[in-house]
Amino acid sequence: MLSMSKEEQARGIATHSSGNHAQAIAYAAAVVGTKAYIVMPDNSPEVKVKAVRGYGAEITFCVNTPEEREKTLQAVVKRTGASFVHPFNDFRVIAGQATAAKEVFEDLSFTLDTIMAPVGGGGLLSGTALAAHYFSPTTQVIAGEPEGAADAVLSFHTGKVERAPFVKTIADGLLTPLGDLTLDIIRRHVKDIQLVSEEEIIEAMRLIWERMKIIIEPSCAVPFAALLRNKEQFKGQQIGIILTGGNVDLGKLPFSG
Amino acid sequence: MLSMSKEEQARGIATHSSGNHAQAIAYAAAVVGTKAYIVMPDNSPEVKVKAVRGYGAEITFCVNTPEEREKTLQAVVKRTGASFVHPFNDFRVIAGQATAAKEVFEDLSFTLDTIMAPVGGGGLLSGTALAAHYFSPTTQVIAGEPEGAADAVLSFHTGKVERAPFVKTIADGLLTPLGDLTLDIIRRHVKDIQLVSEEEIIEAMRLIWERMKIIIEPSCAVPFAALLRNKEQFKGQQIGIILTGGNVDLGKLPFSG
Repeated sequence: MLSMSKEEQARGIATHSSGNHAQAIAYAAAVVGTKAYIVMPDNSPEVKVKAVRGYGAEITFCVNTPEEREKTLQAVVKRTGASFVHPFNDFRVIAGQATAAKEVFEDLSFTLDTIMAPVGGGGLLSGTALAAHYFSPTTQVIAGEPEGAADAVLSFHTGKVERAPFVKTIADGLLTPLGDLTLDIIRRHVKDIQLVSEEEIIEAMRLIWERMKIIIEPSCAVPFAALLRNKEQFKGQQIGIILTGGNVDLGKLPFSG
Repeated sequence: MLSMSKEEQARGIATHSSGNHAQAIAYAAAVVGTKAYIVMPDNSPEVKVKAVRGYGAEITFCVNTPEEREKTLQAVVKRTGASFVHPFNDFRVIAGQATAAKEVFEDLSFTLDTIMAPVGGGGLLSGTALAAHYFSPTTQVIAGEPEGAADAVLSFHTGKVERAPFVKTIADGLLTPLGDLTLDIIRRHVKDIQLVSEEEIIEAMRLIWERMKIIIEPSCAVPFAALLRNKEQFKGQQIGIILTGGNVDLGKLPFSG
C-alpha cells in the first residue's frame, strides 16, 4: 500500500481472493484509511467472509470459476477506480511475502539447512526463495504440494504454467496455478517440490494442533507433511517451515476420534 | 525441582493429576534427570496420557475418585520413595504459578486494571493474586468459574473449603475444590469470582480459536467467558487474561457447524 502514490491509495485497492490475501488487503487498506474491494467466490467459508468483513472491506461475491472472478473484478475496478493487486503474480506481493523468511533468518543465531513453504500460486514460495537466495544462500528451499493439486510440480519440471492433472484436496488455499513471475523465480531458486497425500496433510495438521497448540489450516500443513513423508532425506538438518494461515471452519474439521 | 535437595531429587517426584500439573512434573523431572510417577484417572483422555508418557513419566492408573487417587498415590510413594508434590496446595507450586502473572506485568509498559485467571484448586489463581499484590498492587484480580463446578465462589464467601452444589461442566480442569492454602490467599487478594455457563465457555473458547488461532481447552476459556458476560463492568479497562492449557481431544470438539 505504501508503495502506491497518495492518489492511487485514495481510490482504494481491489483483489480477488478468498483467503489470507483478501484479509491482508482489507487490513492494509484499513491501516492507510482507504477502501478495499474484495471479490470472493460465493461458496467461501463463512469464517473467511466474516474475517474480511471484520476488517471493513466491501465484498462482491461471484461464481467460483477463474473466468467469473476475473470478470467480476474488472467490473469492480471499473466502477470504483481502485487498483488491482494480484494475490501472487506481482513483485510487490512477492517482496512482501519474502519478509516472512527474511525474519526467520534474522531471528536465528544459526543457519538453516532447509526452509519449506507450501505452493499454490507461488507468491509465498517465490518470496521465500528470494529471501533465501539473498540473505541465507546456503539454505535450500523445498516446497510441499498436495497430490490433489499437483500443478506446480508439473510446471517446475516442464517450465510452462501447467494445470493440475486432477483437483481434489482439503488444502483449499493451494488450488491456484503458478503465474509467469512466480514460475520463473521458483524454477531458478527452489530445489524441489514434494507431493503429499490427503491423509498425510491431515496427520501433519493434527500433530501441529496437538503439540504446538496452533490452529493451522490444511494448506499450511502441507510442507510439514512433506517433511514427515521424507524424514530420511532431512535427517540431522536444521529446518524452518513457514506456517501460513488458520482459516478453518471449526464446525467441519477433518479429525476423527 | 531445584528447591529439593539432590537426594530428594534422585528419589524422584510423584503426583496425582490428569492435566497440566502432570505434564509439568514429568517435564521437570526429565530436565533434572530423575523419575516422575504420575497417578492418573483411568478415564483420562488419550491426549493427556500420551503427553505425560511423551515426557518419560511412569503412569499408574486409578479409579477416578478422590479417595482412590490418594490411596494409589500413597502406594506409589511408599514403593518408590518419591516426593509428593501436590497439584496446587503447595507454596512451591503457587510460587511457580505466580511467575505467569509476574511475567505479564514485566512485559507490559503500562499497568493492567484487571488480571483474570480460572479457578479449580486455586494454585494458579493464588499465584496470580500474589504476583499482583507484590508486583502490580493497583491491578485487581478476578477469577472465572463454571456454574457447573461452583465450589470456589462458595468457599470464597463462606470462608470454608466447600464442595460444588452440582458438578457438570465441560471445563474438566476446574473440578477440584480449593485447598486450605489457596483458600486463604484467594480470600485475601482476589476481588471477585464470576460464574459462567457452559454455552458461554464454548463461545469464548471458539472466539479464541478463530481469532487468536490458539488451541485452548474449555477450562482455559472460563475467565474470558466471564469477561464477555460482564462487559459493562470492564468497560475501558486494560485487561490481562492468563491462558492455561490446550489439552483437547480433537476428535471430540464441542463446536457445531
